[in-house]
Amino acid sequence: MPDTSALPVARTIAELREIVSGWKRQGFTVGFVPTMGALHEGHLTLVREAGQRADRVVASVFVNPTQFAAHEDLGSYPRQEAQDAELLAGAGCALMYAPAVGEMYPANATTTISVGAPAEGLEGVFRPQMFGGVALVVAKLLNQVQPHVAVFGEKDFQQLIVVRRLVRDLDIPVEIVGSPTVRDGHGLALSSRNAYLSAEQLEVARRLNGVLAEAGAKASAGERIDEVEAAAREALLTAGYAHVDYVAIRKADDLGEFGSGVVDGPARVIAAAWLGKTRLIDNMAI
Amino acid sequence: MPDTSALPVARTIAELREIVSGWKRQGFTVGFVPTMGALHEGHLTLVREAGQRADRVVASVFVNPTQFAAHEDLGSYPRQEAQDAELLAGAGCALMYAPAVGEMYPANATTTISVGAPAEGLEGVFRPQMFGGVALVVAKLLNQVQPHVAVFGEKDFQQLIVVRRLVRDLDIPVEIVGSPTVRDGHGLALSSRNAYLSAEQLEVARRLNGVLAEAGAKASAGERIDEVEAAAREALLTAGYAHVDYVAIRKADDLGEFGSGVVDGPARVIAAAWLGKTRLIDNMAI
Repeated sequence: MPDTSALPVARTIAELREIVSGWKRQGFTVGFVPTMGALHEGHLTLVREAGQRADRVVASVFVNPTQFAAHEDLGSYPRQEAQDAELLAGAGCALMYAPAVGEMYPANATTTISVGAPAEGLEGVFRPQMFGGVALVVAKLLNQVQPHVAVFGEKDFQQLIVVRRLVRDLDIPVEIVGSPTVRDGHGLALSSRNAYLSAEQLEVARRLNGVLAEAGAKASAGERIDEVEAAAREALLTAGYAHVDYVAIRKADDLGEFGSGVVDGPARVIAAAWLGKTRLIDNMAI
Repeated sequence: MPDTSALPVARTIAELREIVSGWKRQGFTVGFVPTMGALHEGHLTLVREAGQRADRVVASVFVNPTQFAAHEDLGSYPRQEAQDAELLAGAGCALMYAPAVGEMYPANATTTISVGAPAEGLEGVFRPQMFGGVALVVAKLLNQVQPHVAVFGEKDFQQLIVVRRLVRDLDIPVEIVGSPTVRDGHGLALSSRNAYLSAEQLEVARRLNGVLAEAGAKASAGERIDEVEAAAREALLTAGYAHVDYVAIRKADDLGEFGSGVVDGPARVIAAAWLGKTRLIDNMAI
């Protein structure tokens, strides 16, 4: 049982930078994993991945209000900081950074960031506020922590693409690493929002992974993308999903569409669908 | 006569970072002065100021296309890199960073930054594209150079306010220093665009400074801001200016308006006016 009292917690940018600059003076490299807390094995895999690539790992726990729309689950998003600290310590994290909202966003903050095209389709259609909020908080967190490497999960694949573009376009001096999605024994991608699911919904949720795998196999075999997408959407509704925001087969590097209508290069199948009031996303390489 | 061949020039981000990280490994602090070239004594004052605050000074020379509108003077903006290198070396600069447009903006760059309120009035009204372009290139340059301190001229006072807000809001780890405007013997603020002026226009140009000083004195004495602004606008037109974009008396910290209609705190008088096809700006503390 890790000693949670041993995990330092920084609440301010100044405290964070004092600790990180101390490590750098000692010659240590620094890895970073941004999270919104409610940690599960998926997050801990990112922390361990960062630990493979850097001497010291910082994980932030910050439920970022700017990436939630007014009708979304900001208020009910699960918060469990003491448990998160325990889990982080056990995964080898050296510092939890948990700033208050006012530390992250001073009252007269006015700057916004748009990443443009990579943020506009898919999630950008259904959660138009999200990637602006993600870009801003990720730029801020990277500049606050100043890590050598930052690890993001492929679970949020479009977010990973957006972050890579942000970092490239703003020349933020950090290496961005994408880490494969962690799944339960039935293939369900781990997510903090899975906690919202009833036992019955959980059974349906576990079908998403298989439907995407089948779609990927068909597209890979040369079937037309629009037909594969339509079939996958039907399969999800049949499986018990209440609503499908999208099932899309896109280019793996920037999630752009295949102009040819068939997969003729590295591809990703990506989806978002609803079970009751819970929205699940998943994706996989084709 | 400084040996210009002794001034190293970095053309790529990789070259720049190799040199700067070498300095940092040796324990040197780094100062940075961004310029669009066509250097004059105003720029060199910024370089010397940076040299007072850091062990090594980088100056960038980059005519940033994203801050010019289509009808503006991007094509004719003065370019004189060899002379700029010589001047920088003489002012104690250790490295000129002169990237090509394609190095700064890859073909598929999509990210944009808006600084919001501080960028919206004054220059933001008359040159609506400018501060978005400034914010993007300054964020990129700061992340490319990673200086400890960066020096900006008060000549572009709203730009200084915008840069301070950008750096604060994105938590870019750098100290921003504003350096007082350098003027010729007649009070005219030095500007690369002064090179466009005829001898006759130069005489008119030199009146701007005096008109602003008088407006500042009146406002400081308690006259109503709107009346002082109107009188200063008339004075500029009478002096021979063809058109006045604005003369404004604003709060010194964020260029916001005084709600009371009179100066009741630290203030700045700021103006933009035209002589033929040349647009001049100036400002001063009240």
